Amino acid sequence: MNRDQVYMGMAIRMARETVGQTSPNPSVAAVVVKENQVVGIGVHVKAGEPHAEVHALRMAGDKAQGADIYVTLEPCSHYGQTPPCAEAVVEAGIRRVVIASSDPNPKVSGRGIRMMTEKGLEVKTGVLKEEADELNRSFFHFIQTHMPYVRLKSAMSLDGKIATSTGESQWITGEEARLDGHHYRHQSDAILVGINTVLMDNPKLTTRIPGEGENPIRIVLDTHLRMPPSSQLIRDSQAPTWIFVGNNVTEEELQQFRNDSHVRVIPVSSEEVKVEEVLRYLGEHKVTSLLVEGGATIADAFVRADLVDETITYIAPKLIGGKEALTPVAGKGIEQLKNVRSLEVVSTEMIGQDIKIVSVRKGES
Amino acid sequence: MNRDQVYMGMAIRMARETVGQTSPNPSVAAVVVKENQVVGIGVHVKAGEPHAEVHALRMAGDKAQGADIYVTLEPCSHYGQTPPCAEAVVEAGIRRVVIASSDPNPKVSGRGIRMMTEKGLEVKTGVLKEEADELNRSFFHFIQTHMPYVRLKSAMSLDGKIATSTGESQWITGEEARLDGHHYRHQSDAILVGINTVLMDNPKLTTRIPGEGENPIRIVLDTHLRMPPSSQLIRDSQAPTWIFVGNNVTEEELQQFRNDSHVRVIPVSSEEVKVEEVLRYLGEHKVTSLLVEGGATIADAFVRADLVDETITYIAPKLIGGKEALTPVAGKGIEQLKNVRSLEVVSTEMIGQDIKIVSVRKGES
Repeated sequence: MNRDQVYMGMAIRMARETVGQTSPNPSVAAVVVKENQVVGIGVHVKAGEPHAEVHALRMAGDKAQGADIYVTLEPCSHYGQTPPCAEAVVEAGIRRVVIASSDPNPKVSGRGIRMMTEKGLEVKTGVLKEEADELNRSFFHFIQTHMPYVRLKSAMSLDGKIATSTGESQWITGEEARLDGHHYRHQSDAILVGINTVLMDNPKLTTRIPGEGENPIRIVLDTHLRMPPSSQLIRDSQAPTWIFVGNNVTEEELQQFRNDSHVRVIPVSSEEVKVEEVLRYLGEHKVTSLLVEGGATIADAFVRADLVDETITYIAPKLIGGKEALTPVAGKGIEQLKNVRSLEVVSTEMIGQDIKIVSVRKGES
Repeated sequence: MNRDQVYMGMAIRMARETVGQTSPNPSVAAVVVKENQVVGIGVHVKAGEPHAEVHALRMAGDKAQGADIYVTLEPCSHYGQTPPCAEAVVEAGIRRVVIASSDPNPKVSGRGIRMMTEKGLEVKTGVLKEEADELNRSFFHFIQTHMPYVRLKSAMSLDGKIATSTGESQWITGEEARLDGHHYRHQSDAILVGINTVLMDNPKLTTRIPGEGENPIRIVLDTHLRMPPSSQLIRDSQAPTWIFVGNNVTEEELQQFRNDSHVRVIPVSSEEVKVEEVLRYLGEHKVTSLLVEGGATIADAFVRADLVDETITYIAPKLIGGKEALTPVAGKGIEQLKNVRSLEVVSTEMIGQDIKIVSVRKGES
């Protein structure tokens, strides 16, 4: 590891700590270094608050004069809720800027860098780019597609079953794996299930991990608005609940949830609720990442529409068997292997007694 | 690593090279060390030929006097096809014996050790025991249960499918994974499929890896003797083919394969072919390890009878979907989770683009 990688590594580790709390903004950290001493550090804590560079420069104060700054993401060049960071870097008297990821927005990518080189600063890019890109995979996806980054989470046996042939499913994987899975709720802006999952399990879909940020928006696909007003998603107001329904649902039916301020019922443009339209709506409403948790038919809709960006699969080393036992992705499925997309495995690890496999769409790793 | 572990590690690596060629005997290696120099090495090459200790002592010659011997398995104490190795070790003048695994046969375990300590040799046991036990897991199982060690091999997608809903299955996993799977044929005394696999795929079931030992016995479960005389398993005589049929099959039907010397048709005691009876027959005929390759209903019979000792699962990072798509273990399955046995994962690794998971019955790792 050379000097630049050491300081950028430090910045990336700091940025990693903020994953899940900066949406719709990316997770970013900055480190100011002068004469081999760290004189300022900063992370972006929350949307609307100062960017990482601002915190780090503020901490460095006069020591920023002639110093190097390490930033995990290209400093912004636009006036948003805060002034452009590229400008703040120049004004602070920084001599050299080291960047990991470029700005993912093709319209502004390179603009912050240009702004700084024109002022005579030395700029180096691409240091630990892969690690930094990985940190903001879902943000980059959102910026480029205007749709949330979709994670599909499943827990199954070694022979691909999520339940026995009689429907017993609690629990196939162990406690550690189930707890690990909960972290993804916290890291996602929204969590999505089908109405059948609601009717069967009556879940709360909140993050149950102490000290872990906000609850994601709870999304239900419910073509015929079968949602029971007595369900936890309606009675519990800890998080918003958005219900997508087909355009056949009557005005009268829509009325029944008007008094619950955390509940929003959203009729789509067709009889059936199509996942593409749901994702477009979510993207427009700044939902940058979505966790698809159940059930198997919903998962199939995402698979067939080629809208799964990442899979998180927990596998219990058990054989359950049964032609009728449910698998994580059911529905119609893809008929021909040539139409099946290959993902790329980014990690496999043991979580307790179970195996966890994470894979992503190729080109997004 | 201390000195004993270094030499035992060497012996274990040598023994590993012979896996798959010593059946019904275990894979064993021995190293003779005198004054920190290796003076003799030996492996057991093939059943009927000398044991590892004999080769190593022969190579050491006079240098065995006062030397240490490292053996991966407790030296035998009985007169079989060769004289007892414990006696040979004593006669060679060995001073100290280091052993990894004990003899798995409860009737004779410790007898070789006793024979040597009574003659004044120093004996140390259990050095790198885990690694050595792993090497002969199938042999140990066979000695203790008199039934072959059963490996279940499957290749599936990340959502547990071995084919699309239209039945397309070639290929879900990549070439590297398929080649890796072939090694298990070579390491098994026999390979088992159901008649449906024969009727659908007409496989040859031979090992296609150049330079890799003998072909396993090809076993077919075929209750009603539907085996076509034109199938590869009958026409190709590179390996024996044993067909297990129900007791309703007529004498006339049995006659049709009488002229093929590599084919044996075996009627069982009941109308249905039960896997327990097949395994008992195989055990009696010195088949120490069995690879179950297909299909999903056959796999289910083994799972429900709790006769799977090891699973080798290749997972392609793909989502296929489909309620009707086949999974690796179909049939009736196990209805209640409390009756599902947990295996233990012994390894996960990438093979090309795919994931390979090996798990074993608890207590056999």
